[in-house]
Amino acid sequence: MAKLKWGMIGGGEGSQIGPAHRLGALADGRFEFVAGALDHRPDVGREYAQRLGLAADRAYGDWQEMLAGEKDRSDRINLVTVATPNSTHFEITKAFLEAGFNVLCEKPMTMTVEEGEEIQKIAAKSDAICAVNYCYSAYPMVRQARDMVRLGEIGKVRLVVTNFSHGHHGDATDADNPRVRWRYDPAMAGVSGQFADCGIHALHMASFIVGDEVETLSADFASTIPSRELEDDAMVNFRMSGGTVGRLWTSSVAIGRQHGFEIQIFGETGGLRWASEQPNQLIYTPVGGRTQIIEKGEGGLHPDAQRLSRVAIAHPEGFPLAVANIYCDLADAIAGETRDGLPTAEAGLRSMAAVHAAVRSAKENGAWVDARPPMFR
Amino acid sequence: MAKLKWGMIGGGEGSQIGPAHRLGALADGRFEFVAGALDHRPDVGREYAQRLGLAADRAYGDWQEMLAGEKDRSDRINLVTVATPNSTHFEITKAFLEAGFNVLCEKPMTMTVEEGEEIQKIAAKSDAICAVNYCYSAYPMVRQARDMVRLGEIGKVRLVVTNFSHGHHGDATDADNPRVRWRYDPAMAGVSGQFADCGIHALHMASFIVGDEVETLSADFASTIPSRELEDDAMVNFRMSGGTVGRLWTSSVAIGRQHGFEIQIFGETGGLRWASEQPNQLIYTPVGGRTQIIEKGEGGLHPDAQRLSRVAIAHPEGFPLAVANIYCDLADAIAGETRDGLPTAEAGLRSMAAVHAAVRSAKENGAWVDARPPMFR
Amino acid sequence: MAKLKWGMIGGGEGSQIGPAHRLGALADGRFEFVAGALDHRPDVGREYAQRLGLAADRAYGDWQEMLAGEKDRSDRINLVTVATPNSTHFEITKAFLEAGFNVLCEKPMTMTVEEGEEIQKIAAKSDAICAVNYCYSAYPMVRQARDMVRLGEIGKVRLVVTNFSHGHHGDATDADNPRVRWRYDPAMAGVSGQFADCGIHALHMASFIVGDEVETLSADFASTIPSRELEDDAMVNFRMSGGTVGRLWTSSVAIGRQHGFEIQIFGETGGLRWASEQPNQLIYTPVGGRTQIIEKGEGGLHPDAQRLSRVAIAHPEGFPLAVANIYCDLADAIAGETRDGLPTAEAGLRSMAAVHAAVRSAKENGAWVDARPPMFR
Amino acid sequence: MAKLKWGMIGGGEGSQIGPAHRLGALADGRFEFVAGALDHRPDVGREYAQRLGLAADRAYGDWQEMLAGEKDRSDRINLVTVATPNSTHFEITKAFLEAGFNVLCEKPMTMTVEEGEEIQKIAAKSDAICAVNYCYSAYPMVRQARDMVRLGEIGKVRLVVTNFSHGHHGDATDADNPRVRWRYDPAMAGVSGQFADCGIHALHMASFIVGDEVETLSADFASTIPSRELEDDAMVNFRMSGGTVGRLWTSSVAIGRQHGFEIQIFGETGGLRWASEQPNQLIYTPVGGRTQIIEKGEGGLHPDAQRLSRVAIAHPEGFPLAVANIYCDLADAIAGETRDGLPTAEAGLRSMAAVHAAVRSAKENGAWVDARPPMFR
Ligand SMILES: NC(=O)c1ccc[n+]([C@@H]2O[C@H](COP(=O)([O-])OP(=O)(O)OC[C@H]3O[C@@H](n4cnc5c(N)ncnc54)[C@H](O)[C@@H]3O)[C@@H](O)[C@H]2O)c1
Ligand SMILES: NC(=O)c1ccc[n+]([C@@H]2O[C@H](COP(=O)([O-])OP(=O)(O)OC[C@H]3O[C@@H](n4cnc5c(N)ncnc54)[C@H](O)[C@@H]3O)[C@@H](O)[C@H]2O)c1
Ligand SMILES: NC(=O)c1ccc[n+]([C@@H]2O[C@H](COP(=O)([O-])OP(=O)(O)OC[C@H]3O[C@@H](n4cnc5c(N)ncnc54)[C@H](O)[C@@H]3O)[C@@H](O)[C@H]2O)c1
Ligand SMILES: NC(=O)c1ccc[n+]([C@@H]2O[C@H](COP(=O)([O-])OP(=O)(O)OC[C@H]3O[C@@H](n4cnc5c(N)ncnc54)[C@H](O)[C@@H]3O)[C@@H](O)[C@H]2O)c1
Repeated sequence: MAKLKWGMIGGGEGSQIGPAHRLGALADGRFEFVAGALDHRPDVGREYAQRLGLAADRAYGDWQEMLAGEKDRSDRINLVTVATPNSTHFEITKAFLEAGFNVLCEKPMTMTVEEGEEIQKIAAKSDAICAVNYCYSAYPMVRQARDMVRLGEIGKVRLVVTNFSHGHHGDATDADNPRVRWRYDPAMAGVSGQFADCGIHALHMASFIVGDEVETLSADFASTIPSRELEDDAMVNFRMSGGTVGRLWTSSVAIGRQHGFEIQIFGETGGLRWASEQPNQLIYTPVGGRTQIIEKGEGGLHPDAQRLSRVAIAHPEGFPLAVANIYCDLADAIAGETRDGLPTAEAGLRSMAAVHAAVRSAKENGAWVDARPPMFR
Repeated sequence: MAKLKWGMIGGGEGSQIGPAHRLGALADGRFEFVAGALDHRPDVGREYAQRLGLAADRAYGDWQEMLAGEKDRSDRINLVTVATPNSTHFEITKAFLEAGFNVLCEKPMTMTVEEGEEIQKIAAKSDAICAVNYCYSAYPMVRQARDMVRLGEIGKVRLVVTNFSHGHHGDATDADNPRVRWRYDPAMAGVSGQFADCGIHALHMASFIVGDEVETLSADFASTIPSRELEDDAMVNFRMSGGTVGRLWTSSVAIGRQHGFEIQIFGETGGLRWASEQPNQLIYTPVGGRTQIIEKGEGGLHPDAQRLSRVAIAHPEGFPLAVANIYCDLADAIAGETRDGLPTAEAGLRSMAAVHAAVRSAKENGAWVDARPPMFR
Repeated sequence: MAKLKWGMIGGGEGSQIGPAHRLGALADGRFEFVAGALDHRPDVGREYAQRLGLAADRAYGDWQEMLAGEKDRSDRINLVTVATPNSTHFEITKAFLEAGFNVLCEKPMTMTVEEGEEIQKIAAKSDAICAVNYCYSAYPMVRQARDMVRLGEIGKVRLVVTNFSHGHHGDATDADNPRVRWRYDPAMAGVSGQFADCGIHALHMASFIVGDEVETLSADFASTIPSRELEDDAMVNFRMSGGTVGRLWTSSVAIGRQHGFEIQIFGETGGLRWASEQPNQLIYTPVGGRTQIIEKGEGGLHPDAQRLSRVAIAHPEGFPLAVANIYCDLADAIAGETRDGLPTAEAGLRSMAAVHAAVRSAKENGAWVDARPPMFR
Repeated sequence: MAKLKWGMIGGGEGSQIGPAHRLGALADGRFEFVAGALDHRPDVGREYAQRLGLAADRAYGDWQEMLAGEKDRSDRINLVTVATPNSTHFEITKAFLEAGFNVLCEKPMTMTVEEGEEIQKIAAKSDAICAVNYCYSAYPMVRQARDMVRLGEIGKVRLVVTNFSHGHHGDATDADNPRVRWRYDPAMAGVSGQFADCGIHALHMASFIVGDEVETLSADFASTIPSRELEDDAMVNFRMSGGTVGRLWTSSVAIGRQHGFEIQIFGETGGLRWASEQPNQLIYTPVGGRTQIIEKGEGGLHPDAQRLSRVAIAHPEGFPLAVANIYCDLADAIAGETRDGLPTAEAGLRSMAAVHAAVRSAKENGAWVDARPPMFR
């Protein structure tokens, strides 16, 4: 099994998500890291890339240079990860896709719905894979939840309740710190702050597990730190294509919560609960029965969960391995094996459309609006 | 210290809340149980009352008989508890209050806002105490939270997030069971199902801890079991007088949750978290600091929490003792000592007004409405 | 149902265990508190008793006066609770038992094995009940565990692992504080410190749930604060009559643990886990199956657990209600209904014999010794 | 930074620990997997190695072939991992060490104390690194605990209490399954079953965190499934060089526990608690203060914990990353940077000596014995 060749844009030294991609891509030995444009400062990026072991000629200064350099190589990269700030995702993803590269784009895939539709159209026509890094969906117990729902083990889903809330932007005295400030500034962050940053994962996961799409929604946004233009706290109620009721809370001022991403799914014959801070357990209650703990790696899991359980039961697996699972699915997909758990451009587009819909609803005092991208109405 | 004389209406054999009142009223030895009209079937009520040790002449057949019997006795009861179904609270409470009895009324205090205002007016003019059994507010760690907020220990409160959700009405095959059915039938339950039943506790507690009133709200109701006319799941966003943002979720179809009543309060300099299934701990995180566990009964609690901690640290205290704390506060109040933690008719009125407001908002697709009773606008 | 008359010795104002007894005895309204000798200072005891509502002539100065005063009354007490310091339990219990009173004695029942055997002999010959306050055994979920074991639901028990450890005596700078000091001084505490104080509960519970007796044991004691003569930390390995292996750890220097009393029972076909800080849940795992949470008050509990669940599922019940359950069982037993869950003088004797055996073993470097009282060998 | 060359012996397809080594060695991109003798069946091992991407000439049939093949290559491996069954560790480790290779040996390092001393002597004289895979010690929060103890943040350690218990061998009907059976057969497993397999990790960690050695111990072993010759449950009390009291329980019949490895460290001024199923939190209680939660990745951790926190706070990191941390430390050590957290041959020897001492003590009814290897007495 020869290794696939992998390149990365963004994720430079000191970046938040860069290490998780490298750990995730390399852990299984299926990708070899061969090319990168890692930093917005060309020299810094080149130097860091070489320190990470890239050859000098593939330690690029920027993504255009990288695209040009890789395009015509016989040993060109099989996959490029886009882990730059949000506003650059669209143009980079588009350019690489159009050149026939497989792309793993960080969330949010684009800034606007129009851009999202454009990526979706390119991806639909292309042989190249366009995946979006909704990596929480690759935890084995999330895949287990999804398959339990699919197989009817909790009956028709009535209700999904999810939240992704933390308190890391709760310090008003730190609100002007540039590393925090830009996130609530529309000039840099776009139409939404906390919801586009974290809530979007919860929104995606609701669809991922339930298997239906968010159709309409009503939102309440708040900037609890008054100097912020964009929301640092949001509540979104929604309805899904199959009739499921949804409730999603996201906050960055929930002091005391770390990365509190949780989801509860309530069906006609059972309930499920999963939390990202305890990702190796899935809590299941059959209606009228006792609550049970389903463990990653236990016997009798559904196949996707079994496949993605890497080490023995009760040896915890964490975030970097969830990212690694995305890369495994990508390696399989590149090898021609369909991996329907892999989040696609369509998922990226749908969640971005929902973000925009929520912004609109919040402005209109919670009016119910269509959450779907125009092309899917 | 002579014991106070206590009577009870409702709470007959097999009732849900009756035992908690008896355990709570008797535990501290400050009340003596002397009179009751315990059942809607006069004979059954009389018989049960005597089995519980009441004298035959004070084991009444109905509340009218009890009012007549007690009114002119020299040793008449010092307190009556109203633990009958919701639709009777108003007339019973009114009648006893007007006769000068101290009343502890179960929630919801009334069915309509108008009735609530009437009780409030009577109570305001009377020397008699009218309390409402928002008993969760009497857990020591809830009182600790309230005093921490009051004393500025988490700064100005930005956000309160609470839920009271269970799954005990999640079985559709049981939905026609009369014990469940009436709760979602407007003829019997009034304007609201789950929100008036459980959500109301969460709504009260938000005000209780934050110290401000709910002013406006927007609601999304769902009947996830289609045969239900009233909601079995609700989400309410609100704003409080001091500007605090509120989010409240309540459900009776959340299979796997038992009595999951939780509240999180996020202020400028800290966050708090309390859950009724672990009532003896209060989770506190100062901004930028580590999460700490505050234990009931530990040294240095605020006075109200200290006073209501009955047994040594880490010996758990549960729901019956929270109810007992309400009775302690009542005994003190009857003795003339002000207990500002005791939930009053005003609290009963305000929460009922909010229920009606939520019903209206839900009907109007989540329109923001005034949540205050007219008399307090 | 006329109330039973109840008296108390010890448990004066400010005592640790007094409030739990009063809450427990009164909560169910089956006992009336009518007599007491509550304090080692006669005047203080008399005054406090009257403040608690006792008649002046039954607010006694000491237990001898109380025995004399009650003995010949026609309305004499039906039950006396002995909640004085350990060294007085024997003579008080003996005197009241011999006068035909039912007694609830605090643990440890006596200081020596000889005294224990004497109480056991008196109790065996008498019609009076002699119970010992191993109150943790009265939590509904402990009764559930016991009945599950009895009914073979986890198969033959192989192993029981328990600990009762806290850190409240872990501060060396506080070790000379008289309220702490006496506990580690043989002149006042007897042969054992922490093991006789807390470990004894764990020892009792192992037998209570498994249904077999401790036969032999080997102990390792430590005085981790060197100024202490008696142990503040102990580990005891034991074997039970049915062959079950036992392991018991108890400590008072486990800083960070509150009243960490836990027990795990492992049988051939399943395991159970219960912890006193979460007393309303029993964790059960069938061999080869998933861990389940059994909730107090859920449908289908075994009868004893069902009977002692007082309020609805998921409304927590705590330590005072466990004590109340002991009083319920006593009220039933006094009324002639056998309550085999009630801990008896035999249990008090057996656990005291095991304490003495552990002390001997620890002195002999962990030699295995017979843990049974001579009369039961 | 050129990659180091890495080889592996054992860890073939379907092995338990193989995947964790590969994930761990590759995740950080510091090692390149170039050589292996992965299976006890030469052909199977060669084939699998090639499937994992090794060149045909470095996909060896057995370790002797591998040693011969690598010894004289200019690009020979910089590190070899020994992940074969226990009885082969000694000869393989010895052979590679003597040939000057750096070795990471799985635990237990050897079967006998004599072998352990021999490895220790070879390692002491050699420039090559000999590390033992006590990988739990590489979790960031374990390193944090160690540094807190070192820096006196909990004062002199009085007591360490640890257990490593699971229930995966609790099914008697499965006891003759060969995959389980050999573990309790002295012919294959050596002198000890569960203690040498899991208890040894707990033993190592006690020393690792406390910073002292186990000097004497007393053990109680049980074969709770009677057909087993070796113990499936053990309790070991010990004393450390600095006077610390130790208590260690390990079991494989604790049905309901998964990989319940926990450690509590109690010092004069504070207590710590860490559990492998929640490895990203360290629970800390200062004496007289409140319990706090220390999170992996939070600001202000001690340097080693900070360095080994890979992704942002509250993104969980699990077992494979703990193994990766061992490989990081090895890569650094190979590069000449001292990593004193890396478990050495001395640690491997000391823990093996303690296992043998425990076996002896258990046979002698818990007699206290010297736990140190002769060469360190
Ligand atoms: N999937 C997840 O769970 C998750 C978590 C965190 C961040 N993210 C996403 O990852 C992306 C990056 O976030 P982050 O927190 O790591 O940001 P960051 O600011 O910490 O790092 C961004 C990195 O990109 C580099 N960069 C910026 N512009 C570039 C350009 N034009 N070309 C090449 N490199 C460039 C920067 O130099 C830096 O190294 C964002 O889109 C974010 O939403 C996703
Ligand atoms: N505070 C809380 O946490 C809490 C919890 C549960 C119930 N409640 C409230 O307590 C009240 C009772 O609820 P429940 O669940 O115990 O109901 P229930 O149906 O279980 O019991 C009601 C009892 O009242 C008696 N009753 C009915 N009509 C009567 C009348 N006219 N006169 C005298 N007795 C009459 C019935 O015979 C029965 O014994 C409700 O208002 C409910 O909202 C409060
Ligand atoms: N079952 C349990 O879980 C539990 C818990 C705590 C204490 N206890 C037991 O309860 C007993 C009391 O413990 P405590 O912690 O409450 O002690 P404490 O020192 O707090 O209180 C003892 C009380 O007894 C009174 N007293 C002492 N000598 C007396 C005498 N001769 N006559 C009358 N009153 C006398 C004292 O004045 C004081 O009020 C002990 O035996 C203890 O082991 C049991
Ligand atoms: N550090 C830890 O936490 C941890 C966890 C599990 C296992 N282990 C240790 O790892 C070692 C392996 O355990 P496992 O559970 O993976 O065993 P396993 O039986 O699952 O796998 C052993 C592997 O080694 C191969 N093998 C056997 N003999 C060989 C030889 N002579 N040459 C080459 N390959 C050979 C087998 O073919 C198999 O692939 C043991 O020493 C065990 O104690 C450590």
